[in-house]
Amino acid sequence: MIVRDLNELKNTDKAVSDANWTSVRMLLADDGMGFSFHITYLYAGSEHVFEYKNHFESVFCISGKGSITDHATGETHEIKPGVMYALNEHDRHTLRAEDELVMACVFNPPVTGTEVHREDGSYAPAEELA
Amino acid sequence: MIVRDLNELKNTDKAVSDANWTSVRMLLADDGMGFSFHITYLYAGSEHVFEYKNHFESVFCISGKGSITDHATGETHEIKPGVMYALNEHDRHTLRAEDELVMACVFNPPVTGTEVHREDGSYAPAEELA
Repeated sequence: MIVRDLNELKNTDKAVSDANWTSVRMLLADDGMGFSFHITYLYAGSEHVFEYKNHFESVFCISGKGSITDHATGETHEIKPGVMYALNEHDRHTLRAEDELVMACVFNPPVTGTEVHREDGSYAPAEELA
Repeated sequence: MIVRDLNELKNTDKAVSDANWTSVRMLLADDGMGFSFHITYLYAGSEHVFEYKNHFESVFCISGKGSITDHATGETHEIKPGVMYALNEHDRHTLRAEDELVMACVFNPPVTGTEVHREDGSYAPAEELA
């Protein structure tokens, strides 16, 4: 059994940041669960374009307020506590944080922890990181 | 893209209950993500013995207070907001809710939605449900 505390991991190399977000990796590929699990903070006022071409991702809003736009359809959905979106078609999307968003994210295949967002908003597939 | 709201699903057949818990299935096997994602409420004062012999499960505490005991080691860990446990060895465990626990749960392989807890605390493997 693995037991980890978000509040302890925040101060370790399991917390990855850029100017507009911090993601705390609670489970990564080498934990052997077949998925990774992250708690991600998207700072108030930030906007993000992502397209996980090589991953499925689900994102559940724990707290905060924002919106997501699906580039394929042009539809915008409100993000608030209790709302989940799942990128079952590797959907290119824009995520906006009106207030800071705290999100529980699941990736399949699991993120290894060494990925960086590429210019197209994706993470490299695991085999390119080896 | 799939977008779902916990507060709407609570009143549908995606919310599964027994006397001591309710689990709202936000993503199931047929969503094709390769994992299922549930928000589970464990009622105050309840105690649960589970052993997911056929699944990996991670559980992140969003709110509430309780504890988990690993039967293999006898160790007990505090459960509070931000704590996650992952049953990477299909660990038999006792989960106690002192105050109501609200947990974000990920299952791999994904739960289909028709499982019931068997006497040994497990869910049947997917092939036995077919």
